Amino acid sequence: MNALYRWPATDATELHRARFARVEETMRAQRVDALLLVGPDHIRYATDFRAHLTNESEWFAALVWRDGTAQVFLPYIDETITAPYPELPWVTEVIPVASWSAATANPKTWVRAVGGAIAAGGSRLRIGVDSVDHGLLSGLAEHTSGVEFVAVGTELHRIRREKHPIEVTLLDAVSRVNAGAMEAALAAARVGGTDHDVLAAAMAFQQAAGVEFVTHSVCNLRNGTGDWFAGGRRFAEGDPFFFDIGCYGPGGYASDAGRTGFVGEPREEHLEAYEHLRTAHRIAQELAVPGARASTLLAACNEYLEGHGLGRTPYAIGHGVGLRICELPTLFSPGLMDEDVTLIEGEVIALEPETTVVVDGIETVLKIEDNFVVEAHGLRQLTVVPGADEFVAH
Amino acid sequence: MNALYRWPATDATELHRARFARVEETMRAQRVDALLLVGPDHIRYATDFRAHLTNESEWFAALVWRDGTAQVFLPYIDETITAPYPELPWVTEVIPVASWSAATANPKTWVRAVGGAIAAGGSRLRIGVDSVDHGLLSGLAEHTSGVEFVAVGTELHRIRREKHPIEVTLLDAVSRVNAGAMEAALAAARVGGTDHDVLAAAMAFQQAAGVEFVTHSVCNLRNGTGDWFAGGRRFAEGDPFFFDIGCYGPGGYASDAGRTGFVGEPREEHLEAYEHLRTAHRIAQELAVPGARASTLLAACNEYLEGHGLGRTPYAIGHGVGLRICELPTLFSPGLMDEDVTLIEGEVIALEPETTVVVDGIETVLKIEDNFVVEAHGLRQLTVVPGADEFVAH
Repeated sequence: MNALYRWPATDATELHRARFARVEETMRAQRVDALLLVGPDHIRYATDFRAHLTNESEWFAALVWRDGTAQVFLPYIDETITAPYPELPWVTEVIPVASWSAATANPKTWVRAVGGAIAAGGSRLRIGVDSVDHGLLSGLAEHTSGVEFVAVGTELHRIRREKHPIEVTLLDAVSRVNAGAMEAALAAARVGGTDHDVLAAAMAFQQAAGVEFVTHSVCNLRNGTGDWFAGGRRFAEGDPFFFDIGCYGPGGYASDAGRTGFVGEPREEHLEAYEHLRTAHRIAQELAVPGARASTLLAACNEYLEGHGLGRTPYAIGHGVGLRICELPTLFSPGLMDEDVTLIEGEVIALEPETTVVVDGIETVLKIEDNFVVEAHGLRQLTVVPGADEFVAH
Repeated sequence: MNALYRWPATDATELHRARFARVEETMRAQRVDALLLVGPDHIRYATDFRAHLTNESEWFAALVWRDGTAQVFLPYIDETITAPYPELPWVTEVIPVASWSAATANPKTWVRAVGGAIAAGGSRLRIGVDSVDHGLLSGLAEHTSGVEFVAVGTELHRIRREKHPIEVTLLDAVSRVNAGAMEAALAAARVGGTDHDVLAAAMAFQQAAGVEFVTHSVCNLRNGTGDWFAGGRRFAEGDPFFFDIGCYGPGGYASDAGRTGFVGEPREEHLEAYEHLRTAHRIAQELAVPGARASTLLAACNEYLEGHGLGRTPYAIGHGVGLRICELPTLFSPGLMDEDVTLIEGEVIALEPETTVVVDGIETVLKIEDNFVVEAHGLRQLTVVPGADEFVAH
């Protein structure tokens, strides 16, 4: 059933206030007068503005001041417009930059627009930046003498770890839609069909439900580890496969999840490996309580898998989920992440073990991924298949 | 019909040789020893490596040397692997970074990995960079004393304007698939259905055809200009609407196109405005010959629309299409682009006028977008609906 989902009503004003309070605290701690942001997730968190029109996100920028007002640079206007959005009164103006191109394709135009807004905001400013291109920053430094730029991207990721209850509500809803899309994808796999057909069913479900954006769609049918791209391969009787799909729901909140499936009657050895993968997934889930050390999850999962003669998960077993499908915390091994943090109540994570099994000399990769919120006594799963009553009747 | 497309066979070796020759020339002109790239399009152009797994592209990096060899930094391995891809022998190793996170979420881990590879490559190096985060570059500068970083993003966009014949073949194929998706989307619009349903049909078609990635999917039903997001609105009899959809086909080459549609019997005034929009589109197409000045296209289009009492296109009327849905040239107005270039034979462009018409006090935005290759005597349209024989029988 592809149909519009009944997205929950949430209080946008409260969410904005809660998020900007953290942004403002970061600005104070970093002693910056403003933030110059190009990441759609950072722009959304600080201003609520949806700067994500396509997957090529280097078109937009936002200049956010300590008092919460912001100017947004847009690729689809030809003049500056003041007070453009009644529902976002803190966006004081939108300013044109070159249309339909990465900022670096027309750097002089971009520097003139952004530099002009910075210069109008004061002199000798200290401005926090995320991943603004080196050439653009150099151009701005020339255009606005005395301005100092400091990198704040890492801090902006860190403040988003613990989720506000409204964020959890939005993450819950999109995870349910993504779980519904996974059911649709599993149902679309059939002998003679292709890996692309499975992803098409998932996407159609997500999009019809009313998501903001489909973030990814990979399907591993007879590929190796790390090679997750669909390739027009056709399913044969007994084939194991997995897919990993995601989307942003209303508000820009994400889900990132995956399933292993079988077409027809699976081989005993594949089923057994899959059952071990599920056990490894449960082991990680049971360890994920507030205060648990990030690195312990992957270690326990891999100890179990390797103890049963199966391939280990060769990457982080999980990650945070929020305004990105993948954000902090990173749940990897010491040495392959900056901090071996402890889990905190209220954060939303994905747990995604994979394993590899060799049957008759042929290697098969299996994978599962679900989303959870970390509660006081453990995880609550968010990727739960929604009921028919959660959709709007046509 | 959602089915797998017969993608053309192309010579990957010749394409790599042609693209890297331009990259090498740029490295020489910029006097850099290596490139440190994070943009999936730049990485693909220089190395053929597909560093675009999800829409969140800040996970990968590539260090590309003057001799064409490259190291790629991956988010899904836990150890360095040498000579990982037989089909890409110039990728000498893949090196782990923190999994499933923007590089800025685990900057120390990233700097250690990338800085180690730079230091092993020599001392006192001069390295060209695209949009590497400011904090990461500062970290690298500390980690690798004596290395100088120079911005080369703009140059890397510029060298891609003129397409190699193999690039045109790939752009042609994906444009046809995108044109087929537009037909499917138009056919899915019905009274009582939603704007999301139309996009779901487009995506399912693109994905089943075997595209690499769906880049965007917007649908304007009773929204204003610039507000192109589907919102779960339902079609009523006579409604005009437009959508703008895109995808990357095999090789990462893009199509970006759109259509205006009507549900049921349209109002006379809407049809008339649409006919004027089509005329404005043709006027721009006729001007687009090699040597034509970029700014003349939008000027002529808007002169025509405003002369007929209709709203102007308030953004660039077009842009290049290649390894990005939107790249150089920018076809806007002087002052809103860095250079008012002349069109060159062999480049692939999108032309996308919009107009606004007011009927009974209600404003409606209409839009069309097609993809073309600039040939000696004018444009050849690439967004052509494919025939049934271009798909693989199920």
